[in-house]
Amino acid sequence: MGIRVARFRNEGKVAWGVVTSESELQPIDGEFWSLGELLTDGLDAVHTAATADRGSVSVRDVKLLSPVTKPARIVCQGANYANHRSEAGMHPDRPAFNTIFYKADTSLTGPSDDVVRPANVRLLDYEVEVGLVIGKAITTRTEVTSANFVEYVAGMVIADDISARDVQLLEGQWYKGKSYRTFCPIGPYLYLFDEDEASLIHDLELQLSVNGEVRQSANTSQLLFKPEETLTELSQILDLLPGDVVLTGTPGGVALKLSQHEAALLNNPAVSFAVKQAVFMESQSRIHAYLQDGDEIVCTVKTKDGRVHLGTQKNKVVTAQ
Amino acid sequence: MGIRVARFRNEGKVAWGVVTSESELQPIDGEFWSLGELLTDGLDAVHTAATADRGSVSVRDVKLLSPVTKPARIVCQGANYANHRSEAGMHPDRPAFNTIFYKADTSLTGPSDDVVRPANVRLLDYEVEVGLVIGKAITTRTEVTSANFVEYVAGMVIADDISARDVQLLEGQWYKGKSYRTFCPIGPYLYLFDEDEASLIHDLELQLSVNGEVRQSANTSQLLFKPEETLTELSQILDLLPGDVVLTGTPGGVALKLSQHEAALLNNPAVSFAVKQAVFMESQSRIHAYLQDGDEIVCTVKTKDGRVHLGTQKNKVVTAQ
Repeated sequence: MGIRVARFRNEGKVAWGVVTSESELQPIDGEFWSLGELLTDGLDAVHTAATADRGSVSVRDVKLLSPVTKPARIVCQGANYANHRSEAGMHPDRPAFNTIFYKADTSLTGPSDDVVRPANVRLLDYEVEVGLVIGKAITTRTEVTSANFVEYVAGMVIADDISARDVQLLEGQWYKGKSYRTFCPIGPYLYLFDEDEASLIHDLELQLSVNGEVRQSANTSQLLFKPEETLTELSQILDLLPGDVVLTGTPGGVALKLSQHEAALLNNPAVSFAVKQAVFMESQSRIHAYLQDGDEIVCTVKTKDGRVHLGTQKNKVVTAQ
Repeated sequence: MGIRVARFRNEGKVAWGVVTSESELQPIDGEFWSLGELLTDGLDAVHTAATADRGSVSVRDVKLLSPVTKPARIVCQGANYANHRSEAGMHPDRPAFNTIFYKADTSLTGPSDDVVRPANVRLLDYEVEVGLVIGKAITTRTEVTSANFVEYVAGMVIADDISARDVQLLEGQWYKGKSYRTFCPIGPYLYLFDEDEASLIHDLELQLSVNGEVRQSANTSQLLFKPEETLTELSQILDLLPGDVVLTGTPGGVALKLSQHEAALLNNPAVSFAVKQAVFMESQSRIHAYLQDGDEIVCTVKTKDGRVHLGTQKNKVVTAQ
């Protein structure tokens, strides 16, 4: 059984702790300024804290923070579940390539913080995902397999890849529309894998609801490009260091619904921006699933039997002042 | 007159220095592990070093490194010169939005290091650009104007936004094809603006040659989205910290040549990857300007009168083993 780690603020001080039950935290000894430091120098302290029968701090008395800290690389997979591909106007089959994009780390926010809709954004969407947290540096071409998976991937977190569809899809490159401040709630818990738990990643239930209505419900067995092959490919391109995170993509059920015809129009460089904008905003205006002020988004990731549970992420949507 | 700063390795030790003439460096007192630290805590030491008449180290005796250090955010503008838009199959006019993408910081390499072509990449291209180096944190909506420009932008560097066109354009999202290791040579010098030099950024000559043949030659007055408005927009989205860099886009003259018809085909989601690949590789195979093993890329950025000169960046292309 793995260990659940939380980062929290208690009486003005930021600390790390191990979750010993649903409602208790055992603080981890030592000062770790970043998740990378905790994963590099603090694992003994984590294991020591994990031996405590019960924690000395109640989760209810602290403010839980994102276990992923800044600076961090947030590398993301796109269109990695068949049913999300279909609703986004793409062919549902596994494509010829693994779509990779990037999200600014200053979009990171806590598991109970507000998601702020910028005043210019009208089509605010949600995307529950499993995030892989890197535990060991990958700085050269590396074959990541189920045999060495937990050596490179320390653990996993819940992530919500909040997206401004009117910026993301009208501008073509996704970085901007995915990177606004507060667009990446992470946590509450970082689940650190036990050494024999590599297969866990392939059978996790993701769920996202808005105001109590389930919108997304899927299993990571449906991932088109698997974590091992994705990390193997990324290792051929770039470096990932302890504390960095790879978001594995979102399943169907987001607010966005795009026909193949509309997707073709949005991507056609011969069509003017004004026409694209008019067609897209008109088609999406009929959809009531986009996030509105006051909406409450709840995300969970767990095994079917509930034995492994990454906690409950709960964020409210507010509009920028 | 501003100050030119270099980062270099001398007898195994990494140090910072001020360039006091074409061939001398005056080491900067103190230990600064990152560019952000130098810009935050080391400016007094920089100015002290800059008062030296001549340097104590010869540039010829040291290895010059990228003045931008990791980790750093490398935020990039795309399609920001009219003639590059045309050659890439886009309408040359300033578009309705400022295209922003991201480049992994592990693509950073030195101003004389080899650019490594990955074995899977056949269409390796160059893009000379001016990089803006952030000097003061931007963490909230900020109006950047010519009046406060040098407050937020400490200086500028030469950057080469090396691109694997067969990955970048066939996969749609640009992050992967722009992020391979060694795909971002920066330097040699960071030019720190004097306080009255905000207007410098609008009249710089960029030039890139391959094996002595000039391929790109332009002036930053041609930038479609200006640095001030770009930083103002980015401030509404994400945070930039001292040592981060914004690449302002490349002018015409890259190897890539794409008709509007080809661009439309590449972006059409109804066309299969195999067809896109066949058409694109065939059309680009007639172009001999793509980088080949052994090619030498030389980049310069300077004012017309040569008074401000960011040094000469010179990289050789090699193939991954």
